[in-house]
Amino acid sequence: MEAVWIWYAGDFELYHGMLQNFQREERGYGWPAYWKMADWNKNVWFGKSYDLTEKTEFTVLGKGMGYVEVNGLKYPLGQTITCEPGKIDIKVCIGNMAGLPCIYIDSPWIRTNRDWIAGDFVEEHPAGTSSLYTEPEQDPNVVYYTEEAIEPKEILEIAHGVLYRYDKVINGTVEVVLHGKEEVAVCYGESEEEATNLKWCYYKDDHVKNGQLLRRRAFRFLFVPEARKEEVECHAVHQSVPIEKKAAFHSSDEQLNRIWEVARDTYELCSGLFFIDGIKRDRWIWSGDAYQSYFVNQYLYFDEEIDQRTIRALRGKEEIKQHLNTIVDYSLLWIISIRNEYQAYGNLDFVREIYPKMTAMMELFSKQLNDKGFLVGRKKDWIYIDWADFDKKGPLCAEQMLLLETYRAMAFCGKLLGEPTGQYEQAGVELQANILRYFWNHEKGAFVDSYESGKNHVTRHANIFAVLFGLVDEKRQEQIMGHVLQNPEIPEITTPYFKFFELDMWGKLGRLDKVFETIKAYWGGMLERNAITFWEQFDPKETGQQQYAMYGDPFGKSLCHAWAASPIYLLGRYFLGVYPTSPGYGAFAVKPELSYFDSMDCDVPVKDGNVHICYRDGKLEVTATRSGGVLILDGKESEIPVK
Amino acid sequence: MEAVWIWYAGDFELYHGMLQNFQREERGYGWPAYWKMADWNKNVWFGKSYDLTEKTEFTVLGKGMGYVEVNGLKYPLGQTITCEPGKIDIKVCIGNMAGLPCIYIDSPWIRTNRDWIAGDFVEEHPAGTSSLYTEPEQDPNVVYYTEEAIEPKEILEIAHGVLYRYDKVINGTVEVVLHGKEEVAVCYGESEEEATNLKWCYYKDDHVKNGQLLRRRAFRFLFVPEARKEEVECHAVHQSVPIEKKAAFHSSDEQLNRIWEVARDTYELCSGLFFIDGIKRDRWIWSGDAYQSYFVNQYLYFDEEIDQRTIRALRGKEEIKQHLNTIVDYSLLWIISIRNEYQAYGNLDFVREIYPKMTAMMELFSKQLNDKGFLVGRKKDWIYIDWADFDKKGPLCAEQMLLLETYRAMAFCGKLLGEPTGQYEQAGVELQANILRYFWNHEKGAFVDSYESGKNHVTRHANIFAVLFGLVDEKRQEQIMGHVLQNPEIPEITTPYFKFFELDMWGKLGRLDKVFETIKAYWGGMLERNAITFWEQFDPKETGQQQYAMYGDPFGKSLCHAWAASPIYLLGRYFLGVYPTSPGYGAFAVKPELSYFDSMDCDVPVKDGNVHICYRDGKLEVTATRSGGVLILDGKESEIPVK
Repeated sequence: MEAVWIWYAGDFELYHGMLQNFQREERGYGWPAYWKMADWNKNVWFGKSYDLTEKTEFTVLGKGMGYVEVNGLKYPLGQTITCEPGKIDIKVCIGNMAGLPCIYIDSPWIRTNRDWIAGDFVEEHPAGTSSLYTEPEQDPNVVYYTEEAIEPKEILEIAHGVLYRYDKVINGTVEVVLHGKEEVAVCYGESEEEATNLKWCYYKDDHVKNGQLLRRRAFRFLFVPEARKEEVECHAVHQSVPIEKKAAFHSSDEQLNRIWEVARDTYELCSGLFFIDGIKRDRWIWSGDAYQSYFVNQYLYFDEEIDQRTIRALRGKEEIKQHLNTIVDYSLLWIISIRNEYQAYGNLDFVREIYPKMTAMMELFSKQLNDKGFLVGRKKDWIYIDWADFDKKGPLCAEQMLLLETYRAMAFCGKLLGEPTGQYEQAGVELQANILRYFWNHEKGAFVDSYESGKNHVTRHANIFAVLFGLVDEKRQEQIMGHVLQNPEIPEITTPYFKFFELDMWGKLGRLDKVFETIKAYWGGMLERNAITFWEQFDPKETGQQQYAMYGDPFGKSLCHAWAASPIYLLGRYFLGVYPTSPGYGAFAVKPELSYFDSMDCDVPVKDGNVHICYRDGKLEVTATRSGGVLILDGKESEIPVK
Repeated sequence: MEAVWIWYAGDFELYHGMLQNFQREERGYGWPAYWKMADWNKNVWFGKSYDLTEKTEFTVLGKGMGYVEVNGLKYPLGQTITCEPGKIDIKVCIGNMAGLPCIYIDSPWIRTNRDWIAGDFVEEHPAGTSSLYTEPEQDPNVVYYTEEAIEPKEILEIAHGVLYRYDKVINGTVEVVLHGKEEVAVCYGESEEEATNLKWCYYKDDHVKNGQLLRRRAFRFLFVPEARKEEVECHAVHQSVPIEKKAAFHSSDEQLNRIWEVARDTYELCSGLFFIDGIKRDRWIWSGDAYQSYFVNQYLYFDEEIDQRTIRALRGKEEIKQHLNTIVDYSLLWIISIRNEYQAYGNLDFVREIYPKMTAMMELFSKQLNDKGFLVGRKKDWIYIDWADFDKKGPLCAEQMLLLETYRAMAFCGKLLGEPTGQYEQAGVELQANILRYFWNHEKGAFVDSYESGKNHVTRHANIFAVLFGLVDEKRQEQIMGHVLQNPEIPEITTPYFKFFELDMWGKLGRLDKVFETIKAYWGGMLERNAITFWEQFDPKETGQQQYAMYGDPFGKSLCHAWAASPIYLLGRYFLGVYPTSPGYGAFAVKPELSYFDSMDCDVPVKDGNVHICYRDGKLEVTATRSGGVLILDGKESEIPVK
């Protein structure tokens, strides 16, 4: 194995996760995320034994203070150590209060990699690594961005100032060059309205001097008030963490192509070391948002590492006292995501690493069940599910459905590891019975939000989960269809967040017409509003200024929000029809839905490979770069050729 | 209350405690302490409500990034905020990854102090403060030392180099000025032998340039090899955390006076923000060493804050997976120290703050009891007690006696808070019975180290604890006296660490002759070896180079070690006879032992005051700066006058 930087497993994610959650900035102040964040270890050791057949030299590079111990003798970090042939035990102790303690050794015999053990003096585990940190001159405390200078599409003089219009959204730095002016203000905006609103724009730097480099921020527009074109130059540089895109979508439906591309751009902007919610406002790592990003990842990057980093950063250390992001359903989705992760990547080591943190979380849930086994929020817990009007008196129905799915995910993962899972299976059976008993309303033919309030308030959410997770028999499903899902009197879903669950449900039911129409109408609707990235929320009824407002803030809505990127998943999963039929794509299927297209030329990643789907002049060609694929067309199966 | 810096309670200690435990340096490499260290919170909030009767302005100074929220409106840190009369809720959120998040507000109405609440988003407690951080221009991340330039007593040219001999031990910086030389090496030593041993001295800086300021280190000698006097100047500056000394000891016994002074100097050198073990080698915070420092503190500084800082730093956060410093008996002593702390300072708030961490630690103990209720070490646990040859097969007797004392301390502290303590009392009764049943050897008339090995090995330690803690009846005590404590065939105690327990026992028994003789012989013995600070270990049989060696290292022994300062306590407690007779010196006694002195003129602190004892020409005058004192002389009690 090649040499890589190593650290205590999970610590890289805790360190950079905290950095990420401390990135929020708003109108002149910083806004650290409002939850307890787990800390990386400051004091760790690394060890490995070798049996050398010849004399060798090695040097330990390290970030922090400490020493190298070889067969009991201590040496400073950075010093070349010579070892005679024979058995050697290497131990490196390193402390770092300001960053991640980590080491790197590259020599013919001795190299740091995940075969090393890392300990915190209580536990020890295989060391953590990342394919992003493989070179001796790197420092895992630093994020290395790929940089790209972006020219504005237009520079206009308006409202006594200079407006820069870009034709892509930028997340990066701005260098300001002034000609004749002492200083200027620079205002940022996701919309032109925001950039030119000196009072309410989220980011504004006053007193910018000539040559100043402004901190990393996200924007589509810049506005320099009280200036003329010839007095100021703004040089924007977009910064991104390099992750390879492995998918492409070209079809005869130009609107769909554009939706796919804008979803891709949105997603890429929100993918750094971690999946964050959006690039302008929070920039925090949210479990529910990330849950959907894992699905999109599978159909765009197929990058297991960013999933793992996000999952680790979200969860923190084993001890858990607070739900992820304070949201109970985000904790539930976190557990469900591990099962999905295994199904996509088939990595049992990762399940083994994370399982103790899953069981610790289950213990937290178990402490907040009522006498019927329903999960209720404690003080300071947030029962979210979606931005919608729920009847939250007592246990919320949709929350219980996620809990049931969580029991199933625990049973699934536990079985993989040979752990006892009877308790989860039993709890699942009992919970399912009680959900039906308490939340199913016979008169409404639907699940109601609350059985405690007596209001029998029906929203789409629990009913979508019921169908998506297969919690009801056919008869009840029929009722739900008629009474809720196809009932225009029940308020529509207005967030892309929950559109994902809704459309995933329609997809699983084979109602691709519904998926197709909604993607084109809902996401297409944002395109009509001049979107080049997709939004946190979209209500076609909102227009003008109103469409930028959220949370009582005139520009509170994020216009580049990861949870709006699900068309990537929906198109790849249901229209190109690529999915694993055994964990980690040991076998996989491709079931393209040709009736929606005149032609297509698409790439979809699978584990260790790619699938190419070409449909033109009524002729379909599906090839893959690896074996194991089965093409399903008109009910017939055939092996996909390897090319 | 005046304004002070505030932080999440306990975090100051975790931050600076880790800094302290990362200070060890040895022969060119850093040596972080080899245990898991708890982390301070990086993300906290502070809050307080006021009812303003007039308009006021305030500014929040903060270390970190965040914002101030006043009645729901957010402001940057450092911005002056104006509030109209009426009720205001202030909340400050602040994140700091590289240091301690903390804030300071000083305005006529609004001031930060321990009336504020600090939260970590899971728990909230009264804010932490320190009397060392009261000014707006301070930063609680920085230690502010009092500095004193120290001139060498002699500068000699020896062994082709220049030797600086100081007549006091220095813990501080050295600035090097060179005349004509490009660079020099600077070697440090606690002994002249160490400083001039270029290979084995602990600290050595090669390549020191003109004007260079060398990092804080402890030394009594400096050696610059390959140089002449006129080529080099070393300017030493001693640095200390300012803590007021409140005691003085002047008696007709010059040797005893000198012992008291050297113990004081030793102790002062080892007292920074925390009590550390010694100043040259570890510089770590060790619970057993600190345990004795608390006793000395009571008779020298009477500074409650340094005790509290040390107790907090040692214990870390509530979750506990490892014994303090990895040593099981150090965990036990930590709990016992809380009872002593209350008896000395009478601070119930502190007991309340720390009690949850005591009970969490008791739970850890409960997991490692055998079927007889004896505490046994787990893998990686260290059963220390003393540097002595114990028979450690199975449970060690002395460890069980500390456990018994721990149960008693828990019962004591629990009762103060109105917590249920029956379990500790019951466990204590059962443990005492089993200690007698399993460890008492009738033939030997003594406690043996191990009942499992069958070797019936007797050391002084368990027998000293038995008498000190009052675990045996008179008959057994008599046997222990004859068979162990006054039996020259049982190996002597060789560390000042355990001499403390031994002499405290003799003191409690009223055998002051034993205490007096031992102080003069043992500590006086070190003075005869030219000690100006007291040592980690002293064996009069060792001479020459040998006396500096320990741990297999020629200069491994610390020559300035806090646990050697106990004469301060022993003299104050038993010879000046000052002690509280109710918790926190609500009432206190002074029972001077005049028969050992022709004259004395001494000061001893008590809570909120001082006692002055003057004995001259057969006339005793005892006065105090506060009431509550009772003089006990020749069996008679009289009120101590306030002066």
